[in-house]
Amino acid sequence: MKEISTDILIVGAGYAGIAAAKKLQAAHQDFIVMEARDRIGGRTLTEDLESGVTVDMGAKWVGPTQHLVWEWIKETQTETYETYDQGKNLLKFKDKISSYTGTIPKIDPISLIDLGWAIHKMNKLSDQISTSEPWNHPKAREYDAMTLATWMEKHIWTAKAKHLFEIGIQTVFAAEASEISLLFALFYFKSGDNMDTLISIKNGAQQSILKGGTQGLVKKIANPFMDKIHLQEPLAYLSQHEGGIIAESANLRIKAKKCIVTIPPVLINTLVFDPPLPQQKAQLYQRMPMGAAMKVYLIYPTPFWREMGFSGQIVSDEYPLKVTFDVGHADSDQGVLLVFVEGNDARNFIDLEEGTRKKMVLERVEKFFGHQASLPIQYIDKCWTEEVYSRGCYTGLMGPNTLTQFGHQIRAPFQHVHFAGTETAEKWSGYLDGAISSGYRAASEVLKEML
Amino acid sequence: MKEISTDILIVGAGYAGIAAAKKLQAAHQDFIVMEARDRIGGRTLTEDLESGVTVDMGAKWVGPTQHLVWEWIKETQTETYETYDQGKNLLKFKDKISSYTGTIPKIDPISLIDLGWAIHKMNKLSDQISTSEPWNHPKAREYDAMTLATWMEKHIWTAKAKHLFEIGIQTVFAAEASEISLLFALFYFKSGDNMDTLISIKNGAQQSILKGGTQGLVKKIANPFMDKIHLQEPLAYLSQHEGGIIAESANLRIKAKKCIVTIPPVLINTLVFDPPLPQQKAQLYQRMPMGAAMKVYLIYPTPFWREMGFSGQIVSDEYPLKVTFDVGHADSDQGVLLVFVEGNDARNFIDLEEGTRKKMVLERVEKFFGHQASLPIQYIDKCWTEEVYSRGCYTGLMGPNTLTQFGHQIRAPFQHVHFAGTETAEKWSGYLDGAISSGYRAASEVLKEML
Repeated sequence: MKEISTDILIVGAGYAGIAAAKKLQAAHQDFIVMEARDRIGGRTLTEDLESGVTVDMGAKWVGPTQHLVWEWIKETQTETYETYDQGKNLLKFKDKISSYTGTIPKIDPISLIDLGWAIHKMNKLSDQISTSEPWNHPKAREYDAMTLATWMEKHIWTAKAKHLFEIGIQTVFAAEASEISLLFALFYFKSGDNMDTLISIKNGAQQSILKGGTQGLVKKIANPFMDKIHLQEPLAYLSQHEGGIIAESANLRIKAKKCIVTIPPVLINTLVFDPPLPQQKAQLYQRMPMGAAMKVYLIYPTPFWREMGFSGQIVSDEYPLKVTFDVGHADSDQGVLLVFVEGNDARNFIDLEEGTRKKMVLERVEKFFGHQASLPIQYIDKCWTEEVYSRGCYTGLMGPNTLTQFGHQIRAPFQHVHFAGTETAEKWSGYLDGAISSGYRAASEVLKEML
Repeated sequence: MKEISTDILIVGAGYAGIAAAKKLQAAHQDFIVMEARDRIGGRTLTEDLESGVTVDMGAKWVGPTQHLVWEWIKETQTETYETYDQGKNLLKFKDKISSYTGTIPKIDPISLIDLGWAIHKMNKLSDQISTSEPWNHPKAREYDAMTLATWMEKHIWTAKAKHLFEIGIQTVFAAEASEISLLFALFYFKSGDNMDTLISIKNGAQQSILKGGTQGLVKKIANPFMDKIHLQEPLAYLSQHEGGIIAESANLRIKAKKCIVTIPPVLINTLVFDPPLPQQKAQLYQRMPMGAAMKVYLIYPTPFWREMGFSGQIVSDEYPLKVTFDVGHADSDQGVLLVFVEGNDARNFIDLEEGTRKKMVLERVEKFFGHQASLPIQYIDKCWTEEVYSRGCYTGLMGPNTLTQFGHQIRAPFQHVHFAGTETAEKWSGYLDGAISSGYRAASEVLKEML
């Protein structure tokens, strides 16, 4: 077994790990990054397709208040373009397809008011939540004893509004409203400003796309210290003693004074710690399952729907195609339609044969955009639940009784080990921006201790 | 690394693993058991205290309909005795202590009716649930979208009844009503007959105690094949190929045709599978956190409370002492009081210094039984969340949206690997009896495939 010594070991080369490394590099510290995969980027994965189109199979968008990502974008002079957002959106509900413009579909006035009120109430509730200590809200226990689905049951009256709200939830969380606690949902909305921001393109979390993709960005940032990143070394064992830590993969032993663990909660739980994790922390990591998100890209010779006056955005009640976006480059000829399959749908859909999946999606798209839609140049999809070094995505979720009982453990260090990762972020938790801030925070903690 | 070949590998030497081994032994099969700990018994642990008393620090009781455990008891000629259940029980609520007899405390008639109705409704609902396919109930999705706490909020009106019901829930699940789904609770009650059975001593799950303890029983059963059990070999890696499996701990490599994994869901998630677990199974194992239960034993020269006319049973609203039992031998001089600390309480309590814990418990017991109660011969406690090879207890729990979406995966084999463990049982899931039946079932599956 190969042995290396360093001052600081970073586990995981996703956005959080690379952010921590960037900060340590700037502080002239001695560090090493240990990454399980044969690539960096974590839950970002950018692919250059044969058709010439670059697609993000993982995290994709950047929103206007995600300042830390924008700093990286500027620093690397990465070009961005805005998600296509002109023309009519389409809504399918039961057997009717209707078109509308803006975020909120054109539905009957009662359902519309109901939906608007529900989002308004969510925003009002989430606005009261502290992102650093959501468990300190006076009603935290009450909000954390129920699922978001229970809240919806109580506060949304029309079937249509409930359905549209639910699709919004699935798209934001890659999960069902029934598997997350109301308190966690409120924290998450507040963490990304509010529910409106999270579901919107313009001024929202889906506004901008990076040329070269989100993995491209993190590669540029990591470029100055790629020699310090050890790929294909999945950490299995982490022991601590007075002077530091010893971390082991199957082939590599690293001795360090401090350690920053940036992998998702569910993966922390797979490591052998010696001494074991404090029991409250261990119990927390048993209780943050990953969501399930699947991205399907359809590549066409042209974004023909634009000429038909459509935005490419669909909201539908029919499995598996519930939400789509036009994510083609503003300056490219090819049409790129992105279909999301989320939560329970994603886990069921990926278990079908690829041919069946393609057929099902194309049948649905054809209903909206006609025969041309059934003839893409390429179909490509990916479900993150199959990635053993992520176990799902976008993020680690919290069901009821988790945030109030274990939330205080999320950023708590354990002896020489500090914890980062987007799940630990106060701002933009679950997003790239949260991953970066968490890496910076953990690096700061370590730097303070190294003095 | 040492290498062994066998036909069938059993992972885990708890009740499920030993039951599987017993069945394979009877069928003259070639098998090996791989156990992480330096002992067998899993979530059972029997200790002979200096004071001469034998205590179960883990699973303790046997109820009348747990036929498989009774078979083992008869086969090994193990003596049993009944939990002391005479005299007055004590109830503390707010600042009042009152006494009563039977399972249901003497409280004001309104609260009493409320509590009785709630238990009656639970029993009626759970009676409709199929333990083999709880997700097929017409209202399964509705019941699985809410927490048990939400149901209580709706159906129990008085504070006292709600409080007593909640203590019952904590005692049955080692968890809060807010962290389990209503559907899972209904399944669990039905799996153990009904809620009444689970909370009762007489004719209930707390009726009988084994001389020599529950770990003593499994040791006797395992005695004929102890040479086939490899202790201190925590499985880390499990690969599969056409002809079978290869399992590895740090020091041992076992090749086998078939494998039975009996460890808790949360621990299955810590193994490296090659090929990886099917994504739906992997997602399930991210969603079955362990409860938190703590047992505190107080040993006294005599069960002096009996002479005072008390049963030793307390139900109290004051942390940490909420539920106690007199578990002294019928034929022994010494008094043995068992205090349960459950759910959130357990995780908080175990983080205090032992001296503080002892002081807090004794202060509370003294309030009920007077000065003598503050002078035990011995104080001993254990919290199972600290056990890395269990990660909590009694059992793997399911929050909302788990049973309906992933329940069908719980007994699904994965190529050559079959799954047992009390969490996979239809009858007495979470109990010793469920562990035994699950081991028998998995062994039957393997035997069928070996033909």
